[in-house]
Amino acid sequence: MHDTIRVVIIGGVACGAKTAARLARICPQADITILERGDDLSYANCGFPFLLGGEVINKDSLTHTAFEVERNSDYFESYALTKALTGHEAMSIDRASKNVTARIKSTGETVIFPYDKLVISTGASPIIPDIPGIKLKNVYTLWTLKDALAINSALASSNINRAVVVGAGLVGMETAEALKNRGLEVTIIDALPLPLSTIIGEEFGVFIEKELEINGVKFYGEEKLIEIQGSERATGVVTDKREIEADIVIVSVGVRPNLALAESAELSIGERAILTDKCMRTSDPDIYAGGDSVECLNSISGKHVWQPMGSTAARHGRVIADNIAGLKSEFTGVAGTSIVRVFNYSAGKTGLTLKTAEEAGFHPIEMLTANPDIPGFMPRSSFLMIKLLADKETRRLLGAQIIGTGRIDKRLDVIATAIKGNLTIDSLSDVDLAYSPPFATALDPVTHAANSMKNKMDGLIKSLPPSELKSKELRGDSFTILDVRTSDEIKCFGKLKYNGINIPLGELNARAGEIPKDKEIIIVCRSAIRAWIAYTIMLRHGFSNMAALEGGMVSWGYGLDDYQVSP
Amino acid sequence: MHDTIRVVIIGGVACGAKTAARLARICPQADITILERGDDLSYANCGFPFLLGGEVINKDSLTHTAFEVERNSDYFESYALTKALTGHEAMSIDRASKNVTARIKSTGETVIFPYDKLVISTGASPIIPDIPGIKLKNVYTLWTLKDALAINSALASSNINRAVVVGAGLVGMETAEALKNRGLEVTIIDALPLPLSTIIGEEFGVFIEKELEINGVKFYGEEKLIEIQGSERATGVVTDKREIEADIVIVSVGVRPNLALAESAELSIGERAILTDKCMRTSDPDIYAGGDSVECLNSISGKHVWQPMGSTAARHGRVIADNIAGLKSEFTGVAGTSIVRVFNYSAGKTGLTLKTAEEAGFHPIEMLTANPDIPGFMPRSSFLMIKLLADKETRRLLGAQIIGTGRIDKRLDVIATAIKGNLTIDSLSDVDLAYSPPFATALDPVTHAANSMKNKMDGLIKSLPPSELKSKELRGDSFTILDVRTSDEIKCFGKLKYNGINIPLGELNARAGEIPKDKEIIIVCRSAIRAWIAYTIMLRHGFSNMAALEGGMVSWGYGLDDYQVSP
Repeated sequence: MHDTIRVVIIGGVACGAKTAARLARICPQADITILERGDDLSYANCGFPFLLGGEVINKDSLTHTAFEVERNSDYFESYALTKALTGHEAMSIDRASKNVTARIKSTGETVIFPYDKLVISTGASPIIPDIPGIKLKNVYTLWTLKDALAINSALASSNINRAVVVGAGLVGMETAEALKNRGLEVTIIDALPLPLSTIIGEEFGVFIEKELEINGVKFYGEEKLIEIQGSERATGVVTDKREIEADIVIVSVGVRPNLALAESAELSIGERAILTDKCMRTSDPDIYAGGDSVECLNSISGKHVWQPMGSTAARHGRVIADNIAGLKSEFTGVAGTSIVRVFNYSAGKTGLTLKTAEEAGFHPIEMLTANPDIPGFMPRSSFLMIKLLADKETRRLLGAQIIGTGRIDKRLDVIATAIKGNLTIDSLSDVDLAYSPPFATALDPVTHAANSMKNKMDGLIKSLPPSELKSKELRGDSFTILDVRTSDEIKCFGKLKYNGINIPLGELNARAGEIPKDKEIIIVCRSAIRAWIAYTIMLRHGFSNMAALEGGMVSWGYGLDDYQVSP
Repeated sequence: MHDTIRVVIIGGVACGAKTAARLARICPQADITILERGDDLSYANCGFPFLLGGEVINKDSLTHTAFEVERNSDYFESYALTKALTGHEAMSIDRASKNVTARIKSTGETVIFPYDKLVISTGASPIIPDIPGIKLKNVYTLWTLKDALAINSALASSNINRAVVVGAGLVGMETAEALKNRGLEVTIIDALPLPLSTIIGEEFGVFIEKELEINGVKFYGEEKLIEIQGSERATGVVTDKREIEADIVIVSVGVRPNLALAESAELSIGERAILTDKCMRTSDPDIYAGGDSVECLNSISGKHVWQPMGSTAARHGRVIADNIAGLKSEFTGVAGTSIVRVFNYSAGKTGLTLKTAEEAGFHPIEMLTANPDIPGFMPRSSFLMIKLLADKETRRLLGAQIIGTGRIDKRLDVIATAIKGNLTIDSLSDVDLAYSPPFATALDPVTHAANSMKNKMDGLIKSLPPSELKSKELRGDSFTILDVRTSDEIKCFGKLKYNGINIPLGELNARAGEIPKDKEIIIVCRSAIRAWIAYTIMLRHGFSNMAALEGGMVSWGYGLDDYQVSP
């Protein structure tokens, strides 16, 4: 028989549990011990907001396997051949003698666990702002199973009616939606001007802000939490701009990696978290690390980033297990993919943003397009907005931001996969995607987006996104809008508040003479299809100082002319 | 000004209309004429089944732009700066003097159209079997707008209650579903044993057959249409096995490219259709061809294939326009992607199949997996079955077949994109896909599929798909089933009809001694997760002659033990 390999895993939620499960399957000589400081193992923390919102009917489904066995120590014993010790907090690592000292929380006793290979999957912890009132009752973070169950119990009591969610990131938005669905009055505050700013930027953020409003959730951007009021339990929050009454406060301002153990063991730490190689090995070859406590390579920029995500943690766990078992396996990096549902909208990104692309030395160019997710003749056809990012010189695809009420996840995944394959925009436009009307348009929105980017890169059309038109307004630039929609459409859907002229596209060839030649013309239609045809017709009439509004009115989130209230 | 380029396009539905629209936008010097033999231009023929089924509420949406203008000759004149002549049938091409002779159908007059560049987009036509009764009233194909509107009118009359659909391919299946949704009794007959055989194979075909049955559609496989009965209008069909009453018969046995013009002009024709280079240029450098009348390169096998699809036609049109306009643009091939909805199931494929991979000289290996599309704790979580195909030596991803009641289109598109990027199975398993519970599992089904394929290729597990277990039965092989589900699950969901033993996974380590050592053991659970854990435990107990059932009971479509009827 093989010699036993003693593997100690610190942390048994995501990466740690995955490491144990795979290792047990592929490495019979592994003798696996998990040290988990909490009471719970391997639970689905990404499901917590959906538990609170009532979508997860059976809370056991977050802690049990698909075959309805609780993932507790017994489960790990029988199914993963792993000794999983809860309530065991690892206190220190002795790298020289290769052991971990853990404290048993119930007894205070310390125990020493010798290892041949050690895995650090200590995860992250929510950031708790140091403000008055933060320790009041009914002030929560939503991170552990305990948090989720505590909030769920609190919500079941009848006197919880008003919630404040602090932080409009991924978890904050999911939590806000959940609490609203649960029947609460919900207010979100965030230090940045718009929700999900770091994911989708301001141009798309305005749509999410509007979606919150439509669904009765108040959003206060550029607002700082100063204090939580109350004597025993929270009764409200004070920001730098107002007071808001609240029966419950959820603080969701981000998380921090748990690095104390790695730091005291003097493992190499990067800018944000533990450094590893592609095999997830730390600076000590017998110590692996994964999950929220490590930095990853961004596979596009080649820079180390910190991407605390359940999916990343699971991928790490697999690579760690493979390497301990002696299989060749590498974690090739993240692409910065994330997605969130906000009521009827979905929003996400993958790859770099304009800013991170510039920082990484690319020459990025962006193109915004709006297209229906399935053909307009089908029921539930719905517009998506895609902002593609590419490198001007190599034409390599660098990233995308996508929002809409339609199926954005498919398009994000296609782009994430295209990034993995180092596709250029040209190749992206030529992928043989699955087409049938219930699933996509004949040319998928991703194909359209790539084609539009090609047109822009090739200089076939000048265009500008809504944010740039907005900037033109703010700078006081002189321009004239040419709106080529029909007057019925304008009546029905409203128009921009800038000076302009309306010539329906069908009449443009005949009426081009009406258009002033001394000003820049911004051509506008519903989704930019007609704007492009108009652009061509205008070219033939000798115009050159012009640009089409990318994504058309569909993508314009900055408000309409006042006269226009409703159809 | 530039010299005018006279461009004549034969055929104005998909590729032809797209060519004109793009050319008008990017090539001001193009003088574009479309010759369309039918009365209709640029209609959405992929939408016809959904019109018949009542999903497309407004039939104008199939023939009008998103901004509600009919795509007729006036539209092409005003919006695409194109002369679109309907009822003009191109009769011959004179390549020497570069002109096309067309006959005006209404007057019989012939007109000569000189060209600098010619585009052949003559499409395909349905195959009409040469059998008695094929010309009776109420016998239709579903191909042109006229067909669709005629069927739609016929259905509106009250005496149409029973339909026979001949052919269980993509269009046949969509049509059968549509007619059923419209309230008809529907029977499908096909020469092959199972529906969608050429797309998804028999192993998955059994699930579609079952789905038809559940939805009250009769399917008769391996049955040949002999005759359509009736005097004036159809009253039934006769097959080689039975007679079936019918008030309407839809013949959907495939299409053939329209090659007469290209053949008489002596352009190079391949095995199935017109040959072009990557610029979509035929053997005559001034003649382009695209859409259903050309062959394409399969980008994986490097072989020419014929893939008549609306999406392919649109991509061709763009490349043709670019090349005529002098832009560098290539069509880099198809991957054989297709998808279809059949009631609650969706089914599709991309890339090669085992057979076409072998023919192309690869050393293919297949792996079947079943995984939920979103986490089990979310509402509407649903299993997908993915059969991945890879090359054993290079580990390159070659293709996939996918079915399920969940969201398969996303996974097909991810795999199609991965194929475009020449990803290996290892890279595919490491794509940073978008994760949040409403959209996917932490490791997406594609990631799981790739990981399982890696396990199989790396020899970590021996496994076999349901079809192979079925073959074992047919061959009379000796084997014992080890079912590691709980007895409750077996009661509830049924069990295989083979001899075997049931040991719930949690008890396996203790009870492994009960398992016979002299026979091959096939390990079975719900979706193969537990089977793999069991496999590991068995290894530790010294078993080696064993294999796990890929995809578990979820993927077993060949019937259950008789004793087991319902929970």
